[in-house]
Amino acid sequence: MTATPRLQGIFSPVLTPFNADYSPAPDRYVRHCKWLLDQGVGLAVFGTNSEANSLSVAEKRQLLDTLLEAGVPPSRLMPGTGTCAITDTIELTRHAVKAGCGGVLMLPPFYYKGVSDEGLYRAYASVIDAVADERLRIYLYHIPPVSNVPISLDLIDRLLTRFPRTIAGVKDSSGDWNNTSAMLERFAARGFDVFAGSENFLLANLRGGGVGCITATGNVNPGPIVRLYQTWRQADADAQQAALDATRAVFAKFPMIPAMKAAIAWKSGNPAWRHVRPPLVELDAAQAAALQQALDGVGFVMPNAGQLA
Amino acid sequence: MTATPRLQGIFSPVLTPFNADYSPAPDRYVRHCKWLLDQGVGLAVFGTNSEANSLSVAEKRQLLDTLLEAGVPPSRLMPGTGTCAITDTIELTRHAVKAGCGGVLMLPPFYYKGVSDEGLYRAYASVIDAVADERLRIYLYHIPPVSNVPISLDLIDRLLTRFPRTIAGVKDSSGDWNNTSAMLERFAARGFDVFAGSENFLLANLRGGGVGCITATGNVNPGPIVRLYQTWRQADADAQQAALDATRAVFAKFPMIPAMKAAIAWKSGNPAWRHVRPPLVELDAAQAAALQQALDGVGFVMPNAGQLA
Repeated sequence: MTATPRLQGIFSPVLTPFNADYSPAPDRYVRHCKWLLDQGVGLAVFGTNSEANSLSVAEKRQLLDTLLEAGVPPSRLMPGTGTCAITDTIELTRHAVKAGCGGVLMLPPFYYKGVSDEGLYRAYASVIDAVADERLRIYLYHIPPVSNVPISLDLIDRLLTRFPRTIAGVKDSSGDWNNTSAMLERFAARGFDVFAGSENFLLANLRGGGVGCITATGNVNPGPIVRLYQTWRQADADAQQAALDATRAVFAKFPMIPAMKAAIAWKSGNPAWRHVRPPLVELDAAQAAALQQALDGVGFVMPNAGQLA
Repeated sequence: MTATPRLQGIFSPVLTPFNADYSPAPDRYVRHCKWLLDQGVGLAVFGTNSEANSLSVAEKRQLLDTLLEAGVPPSRLMPGTGTCAITDTIELTRHAVKAGCGGVLMLPPFYYKGVSDEGLYRAYASVIDAVADERLRIYLYHIPPVSNVPISLDLIDRLLTRFPRTIAGVKDSSGDWNNTSAMLERFAARGFDVFAGSENFLLANLRGGGVGCITATGNVNPGPIVRLYQTWRQADADAQQAALDATRAVFAKFPMIPAMKAAIAWKSGNPAWRHVRPPLVELDAAQAAALQQALDGVGFVMPNAGQLA
């Protein structure tokens, strides 16, 4: 057994900053990652909220290299490496493992719909066999509202049985607590680490034996989310959870990725943060004003946001 | 105006043959493409039924180069170039245009769901602007049952208005004749060429002013489909359509891609044709036997299938 520490706590699918021409903005990216690390948030770069599926393999490799060259510790990185094509997934996963990343978050191949558990098993097994590195730690990425390709409990069971060291856990973005609870009950005792897919389920997940959450709004509200993770056994935990939910609910009223970018543009003072890559569209002026008003209403703050400019 | 002839007739999303290790089999690929061309079928390589979304950008570039080096005329090629990431779509589209392909079939970015027409417009416009080649002819690929990202009539109108030379037409794989009919009524007179997404709608599409179909089963039943295209004004057209529908219905009872590959394995005598890349799974022995029996029941033949071995 290796002595690699398991990933746990609060991770964020790191927003990818773009320029007006839709090219990535690496300097702002590094600054955002360091700001998140300073607040105790791990870096699930290349997640759904990173617009990672709008980036090419080469762009993702380059952005990861940029972070490593800037001194970001690979042990705090959980890059998303799952794509439509197992050949691309193998390339990205191999790159992440060689870089020493603490784990990878892996979507199933998501173009073909209605595929069987056998087919998804083969896809994951093919990647694991091809990467062939005992350091590999895979967090399965279950996000049926977007991928439209669910990861069933039976598939997890089969993968965990065949690859007990490599299959490290899951991010459950189903939005269905019953599913998260079933994962905890069935697999947590086997060393399978369950991350909730948003902070809405953080307290419930920790109480049920989960290890944290990987959450979009970690990009903008990291401090309070990390505080609940650190103090969840305290008497005020439910009140903390309610406050987190109130802030999350504001962002959820808007398209989430453009809204988070609009909030950073506002708080950092750099309007370039608003850019998203197509097929997404940035908030318009009226939406941005409504977002600001609603965030003020819940007492939203971003400490040291000037660092993100 | 250029004198480039418009693509029309019967195209097939060419099946991609794999080896047992899931690597593409280029020699069989060339043989299959030439067999299709011999029967009058154009090559919509890298479509959904090509398992193209299970191939990396590099694999697709290499397979296209293989065909061109083998003497396949680029004017008969309509490669699929739409991916999740506009950067990948630009690379594949540029490669296809430089190769002289008659057109490209372009999926919208399909990971993010519920995106706006504005976002999809920006995605297509970004690709067109970046490729910046007046030879580019785009066929929009509307396949909501798989992509889960529809291309609306209003989006087509906007793209056609802004890029009247580049937006050449559509493949409508909605399976909804009302939608195909609406496309014909609204856009055919503006030089927008409507291909039905399967031969089930071939006769209706031709009668309504469409230009042909791009159909999976063109891979296995090319002769009769081409014959209907060539003779659709004859008295037996409806009887021909009914015969095509009967054969198609057999394949549609099974997972389509593995079933077509099983049929070619059977008729060519080369069992390697069965291989599919995960997340797909080949037919099992019982399914393959049931397929053969059902195909015999509709008098299915594949002339010169030995060429495909």
